[in-house]
Amino acid sequence: MNGKYKAFWLDENKDVVVIDQTKLPFEYETVTLKTAEDAIVAIKDMIVRGAGVIGNIAAFGVYLAVKENNSLSFIKAKAQEIRESRPTAVNLMWAVDLMMKRLNASEENLLEIALEEAIKITDGDVERSALIGKFGCDKFEEIMQQSGKKTINVLTHCNAGWLAIVDDGSALAPIYEAQRRGIEVHVWVDETRPRNQGANLTAWELEKSGINHTVIPDNTGGYLMQQGFVDVCIVGADRVSAQGDVANKIGTYLKALAAHDNNVPFYVAIPEGTLDFDIVDGVKDIPIETRSEDEVKFIRGLSKDNRVEELQIVPSASKCINYGFDITPNRLVTGLITEKGICKANLNAIENMFKK
Amino acid sequence: MNGKYKAFWLDENKDVVVIDQTKLPFEYETVTLKTAEDAIVAIKDMIVRGAGVIGNIAAFGVYLAVKENNSLSFIKAKAQEIRESRPTAVNLMWAVDLMMKRLNASEENLLEIALEEAIKITDGDVERSALIGKFGCDKFEEIMQQSGKKTINVLTHCNAGWLAIVDDGSALAPIYEAQRRGIEVHVWVDETRPRNQGANLTAWELEKSGINHTVIPDNTGGYLMQQGFVDVCIVGADRVSAQGDVANKIGTYLKALAAHDNNVPFYVAIPEGTLDFDIVDGVKDIPIETRSEDEVKFIRGLSKDNRVEELQIVPSASKCINYGFDITPNRLVTGLITEKGICKANLNAIENMFKK
Repeated sequence: MNGKYKAFWLDENKDVVVIDQTKLPFEYETVTLKTAEDAIVAIKDMIVRGAGVIGNIAAFGVYLAVKENNSLSFIKAKAQEIRESRPTAVNLMWAVDLMMKRLNASEENLLEIALEEAIKITDGDVERSALIGKFGCDKFEEIMQQSGKKTINVLTHCNAGWLAIVDDGSALAPIYEAQRRGIEVHVWVDETRPRNQGANLTAWELEKSGINHTVIPDNTGGYLMQQGFVDVCIVGADRVSAQGDVANKIGTYLKALAAHDNNVPFYVAIPEGTLDFDIVDGVKDIPIETRSEDEVKFIRGLSKDNRVEELQIVPSASKCINYGFDITPNRLVTGLITEKGICKANLNAIENMFKK
Repeated sequence: MNGKYKAFWLDENKDVVVIDQTKLPFEYETVTLKTAEDAIVAIKDMIVRGAGVIGNIAAFGVYLAVKENNSLSFIKAKAQEIRESRPTAVNLMWAVDLMMKRLNASEENLLEIALEEAIKITDGDVERSALIGKFGCDKFEEIMQQSGKKTINVLTHCNAGWLAIVDDGSALAPIYEAQRRGIEVHVWVDETRPRNQGANLTAWELEKSGINHTVIPDNTGGYLMQQGFVDVCIVGADRVSAQGDVANKIGTYLKALAAHDNNVPFYVAIPEGTLDFDIVDGVKDIPIETRSEDEVKFIRGLSKDNRVEELQIVPSASKCINYGFDITPNRLVTGLITEKGICKANLNAIENMFKK
């Protein structure tokens, strides 16, 4: 491949151009990353986000470090900083480690090798995304056959589309595949407070692709499931433990509870890189990122005269707290949709699929 | 009493002055209701909201109809319009029916009688609110004794404080009572999308009273309960069925599921008027209001230069849907906190408390 993806690409100087995801959906801007520091800021400030793309930009961040200064001590220091830029996303650590393994084993042509490895990591995501799309869509067809319905209603939380994982996403990949197969699909898009990645990113992505969807407050999904308006839930993940506990955007756990209570299948779409075999009990051991309370207190949107502005939506004197993720225990997960197929969310099933 | 309450009051012309709850927390404005139509608009547009206050303003709306034109046919027509102004709130129907029963039985002095009855209905809420506060706070003390904790962490959804039920609210009444008893209390305030009654009203109320609180996105409660940061959930309700199914602000059901999954007690604080003995299966039979999608698509807040503005927060081409309520099945409710004490949420317990 040539380093051209939907969410980011290499420019003529071989710098990394990313879509600024903090500006969508009302502004489309790109940011050029020229240094490892640029990549760190892009990850920290969520200019790029999403499990896969974080990993990709981490890998390209190591490449940018090499481009700046190809002394191994400099590269190692930057790699460490990149690793620490967001605590919950395991793809980030995974991608940096792959990059450093390759660079540590090389003596010359470090820049070329770094670029090759970053592209290889990212191209792997493209392949995995396509396979997740295929297996997930097969499941959609199975669900539709069982219900006899002509439209499949899919609920998703946050954004796990092509802005999150190149080139079709994880949770949204089966939806894009369904569109290609001519299946009628309607998506319930959780707004996903506080950063509104559903309303800002998923709705924007689906609209660009002409996929029928409805944006809902995060509070609404339970009622929809009670009323039989949801055929399947599908989300991505930032980290999945060895026994299948799922760290994903805060609020995922609440939807999994509602799905379980209403017999709605709840799937988590992930590439292998999202699995953390070092952690078994996700509820106890996956670290949860606490982000700035300003993300709760202020909101960005479009003013009546078409300017992007920020409003305060919580009284000044009130405190807020902003946990980025929650953990959905494996007992609430119907299955993991991976590039190797669909497996149950438990220790044995995951080991059988990935470790043999 | 004299028709003076915290959320509304009679002015020197015996018109009804209400706090405009659509303007809080960044603007404090009052609106004077002079006609039944004014009361209907105030209820429909949520200038006033909250189970109790809707009922009160419905009663005073009938009084304002009498003030306009004391022919019984005019009053009846207006009463019917008031009854239909919001579909889920049962207090509204209850209050209008009490008013009409009294007026139908009277031949003269209709205006005086209407005013007396509206005040009587509202004064009843004051008494009931105080009793709910007492019983609820006794329960808080019991929970604290069991856990040995020095602070009680209460999670609430939407607003069921003094803006919703005079004069201390339903769900918040035990919290105000706890403050009076010198109990250390901290409140997790669900933002409550899409209208943000938590961030706009509950946070504002608590702040005015100096009660320690933290505003959280609606997505956060599940994680907090997983981590043991919530000792009790308490919400109000718009309607409770004869078997104890609870219609309350959309998203309540998701919190009840999380509470159940984490052994956190989940209480619903209601006066008797919120019980609808004509409906048994709430999930099947309580009508759920669908409101304008603009409430999801646009948000109000304070600009950097201190003006209250509205922003669009969903792409123009995306549809939204806005259900006002969901139903929490009685199996998820630990108990109902009422003016008669706390009872289990089931047919027998409710009948025993209210029908004998």
